[in-house]
Amino acid sequence: MNHFSSVRDVPDLKQLLETALAVKQHPHAWHQLGKHKTLGLVFFNSSLRTRMSSQRAAYNLGMNTIVLNVSSDSWQLEFADGAVMRHDKAEHIRDAAPVMGQYCDLIGIRAFAGLQDREADYREEVLEAFKQYAGVPIISLESATLHPLQSFADLITIEMHKRSSRPRVVLSWAPHPRALPQAVANSFAEWMLRAEVELVITHPEGYELDPRFTQGAEVEYDQRKAFEGADFVYAKNWSSYTHYGQILTQSEGWMIDAEKMALTRQAFFMHCLPVRRNVVVADAVIDSPQSLATEQAANRVVSMQTVLKSMLEQGVASN
Amino acid sequence: MNHFSSVRDVPDLKQLLETALAVKQHPHAWHQLGKHKTLGLVFFNSSLRTRMSSQRAAYNLGMNTIVLNVSSDSWQLEFADGAVMRHDKAEHIRDAAPVMGQYCDLIGIRAFAGLQDREADYREEVLEAFKQYAGVPIISLESATLHPLQSFADLITIEMHKRSSRPRVVLSWAPHPRALPQAVANSFAEWMLRAEVELVITHPEGYELDPRFTQGAEVEYDQRKAFEGADFVYAKNWSSYTHYGQILTQSEGWMIDAEKMALTRQAFFMHCLPVRRNVVVADAVIDSPQSLATEQAANRVVSMQTVLKSMLEQGVASN
Amino acid sequence: MNHFSSVRDVPDLKQLLETALAVKQHPHAWHQLGKHKTLGLVFFNSSLRTRMSSQRAAYNLGMNTIVLNVSSDSWQLEFADGAVMRHDKAEHIRDAAPVMGQYCDLIGIRAFAGLQDREADYREEVLEAFKQYAGVPIISLESATLHPLQSFADLITIEMHKRSSRPRVVLSWAPHPRALPQAVANSFAEWMLRAEVELVITHPEGYELDPRFTQGAEVEYDQRKAFEGADFVYAKNWSSYTHYGQILTQSEGWMIDAEKMALTRQAFFMHCLPVRRNVVVADAVIDSPQSLATEQAANRVVSMQTVLKSMLEQGVASN
Repeated sequence: MNHFSSVRDVPDLKQLLETALAVKQHPHAWHQLGKHKTLGLVFFNSSLRTRMSSQRAAYNLGMNTIVLNVSSDSWQLEFADGAVMRHDKAEHIRDAAPVMGQYCDLIGIRAFAGLQDREADYREEVLEAFKQYAGVPIISLESATLHPLQSFADLITIEMHKRSSRPRVVLSWAPHPRALPQAVANSFAEWMLRAEVELVITHPEGYELDPRFTQGAEVEYDQRKAFEGADFVYAKNWSSYTHYGQILTQSEGWMIDAEKMALTRQAFFMHCLPVRRNVVVADAVIDSPQSLATEQAANRVVSMQTVLKSMLEQGVASN
Repeated sequence: MNHFSSVRDVPDLKQLLETALAVKQHPHAWHQLGKHKTLGLVFFNSSLRTRMSSQRAAYNLGMNTIVLNVSSDSWQLEFADGAVMRHDKAEHIRDAAPVMGQYCDLIGIRAFAGLQDREADYREEVLEAFKQYAGVPIISLESATLHPLQSFADLITIEMHKRSSRPRVVLSWAPHPRALPQAVANSFAEWMLRAEVELVITHPEGYELDPRFTQGAEVEYDQRKAFEGADFVYAKNWSSYTHYGQILTQSEGWMIDAEKMALTRQAFFMHCLPVRRNVVVADAVIDSPQSLATEQAANRVVSMQTVLKSMLEQGVASN
Repeated sequence: MNHFSSVRDVPDLKQLLETALAVKQHPHAWHQLGKHKTLGLVFFNSSLRTRMSSQRAAYNLGMNTIVLNVSSDSWQLEFADGAVMRHDKAEHIRDAAPVMGQYCDLIGIRAFAGLQDREADYREEVLEAFKQYAGVPIISLESATLHPLQSFADLITIEMHKRSSRPRVVLSWAPHPRALPQAVANSFAEWMLRAEVELVITHPEGYELDPRFTQGAEVEYDQRKAFEGADFVYAKNWSSYTHYGQILTQSEGWMIDAEKMALTRQAFFMHCLPVRRNVVVADAVIDSPQSLATEQAANRVVSMQTVLKSMLEQGVASN
């Protein structure tokens, strides 16, 4: 892996998953691997799980960390080539990224979709600029269109709880008061489509995801029908891809509650967090023993540590 | 100690104080104890001493640290059970706390009183939620009603400077332009009442503290009379507990100055900092050789390190 | 060196430069030197390079770091002696600095010029207060009037690329949309005047720097003439020192472009970053192979690590 920003960057998913299970069992077994190495964590957006789990993963490998909150610690960055920088942006990514690459051996980047301009978001302007200019491996901490560390943690969680060789996994749209990116849903789809699962996506009409990520998944517009026989229900809101960034309908009937979960094969409930309780999911579901939400979050250390370990082992040029 | 949020959590105060004196003398003697352990420091409010001294204490024990400024790094948390989360709060403490407990072996929490609703503040909603849901030991970095790491540092400081076996310690209210919580005063009172000192509390009428913390202390409304024979004068402002959160009077006559200190038995001056100079205390007093303010702050490393050491030694389940 | 805030603090510049070259070659050779030592990094202003390079330098020496963003993490500090602190400032530097000195073995301070009051800025109120009250060595991370870690990194960069024993180094003013301090320019001048270079300063009339820093440099008001025969062109904007803090003219003709660089002896282009592209310098120049901007930034780790190493070796009293 030169970079880690999609499942498409993973040469052998089965092997990566096996490594993850070993890391989960023995988190401190490689605590010398990251000696003298520094992980930079660059946030263009807020973070709780990613911020904390990435630091913990680095510490488990003996790495140091440097955290940069771009807007509060430094200043706004310019991404447009040829810009005449007379206005509010004080530094160009062409200058900032190579410098960060001199200070850090590996860099994680969080940069969400703006949800104003679909083409710009799906071009992954920020992430791609870091890949192009930083000169060191880049790890996505959730980009405009994907959240691979979350999806990898989700896969680890499913692997540990599956009760059949090919479980039925239902990705269900759920309501939310604010317009959210499609990143978690896109990413979950592309990871599941490469794993040993049967993926069903259910959402109201108008919330179809970009087919580049969902090709091969079954789409079922009837949520109750989708839940029948499910082994895992993965809840997530996203705003419309076709009517880009819009909330089409409140669709409150789509909240996941105990009555709907009763349609499944005693399915596990999954969510990447943060979650709006009693909007996305009823308390009774997320507080039930079938909820894997905390365990998914715990596996964020495992997914990050596995990616870091793989990159360190393949040899990061020492700064 | 399962948690550390009050002197009531300390099984043997005398022994803890002895450990503190050993830690002060040999700060690096246990630098292997915290190996592979991570301390989370979660701030709902600003901090200078607590932030820096807690990190230093962790480093002295070989621990890693993760700092989270809740409002600027992540988002607002919901604490109400059963809330329908349609508004500004993006995550519930029931989800956030267990996740942090997966990433950190011990968690420090700073969450001040809001001073609007006495019942809510004195219920310690935030601190108690972390204790209930995080699944790891919680250390108060100043809660709504108490500041035990400060009081413990104060006790260490008194222990090192006392000139008699049972010194007279005067906690004196002092003026302040803003309404402040009662936490430092409550906490100092409950620690002193369990130590080998004679505690006198002096304040204008209307500033009586919650008797749950002060039961057994002498209260003297005449500040000058209280100062007579004092070995230590501990200055602190607090807003009214009975007229909750209110500033009852400017009471500028209560500032601590050299003339008042002359009434004492050459008392040491103490304050937890930050302090409003020439409002709470005159420059001449805090700049005098009798001032222990910097030493109290230095002992914040000792109190935190002693608490961390005790928790690590009793065995923190490894994440 | 008791403190590091100017080249005047360096007892032997030639020796410091030799140490820097050794540090650059073997960054991890002294990774035990900083054991049990903590570097505090205190920011009154934004930072990207300084923040990240200082942490990396500390890690390379095995030191721990504590970062404090004064305004967002804590509160505003008072610097005026005798102030009656009734207003917005919650703590006096006379109390805050000694406390930080108890928690950190060395402290770096960033505090820019306010550009309102020349006397106040050039008194270096913040930096000098830390030197006076902290009780530990202070390292300037850019003060109101100087930026010595940048200048030292610049000198290292020039040393590694010079093609003659006494290269011609041109410090050129360049346009900028905002009023900037004189710190980088002042500092570059005082370092170059002590190094084996010929220093020429070029700027529009009215932008003369404080002669205390530039005494001995040639000043040439004609930018093109100054560039003739240059080996290094160092671009930087600053606001007027005589008409303090003012932008006298947009002077866009002063942007550094390829046509002007053609007047030089194939000079290297230098800038401390962040830079406003196509305002200060044309893309074609900063993207050319002659640009040393990224390398200067990389050498910020080297300059900081060299200063830390020197201070640690001369013996920092252990906290």
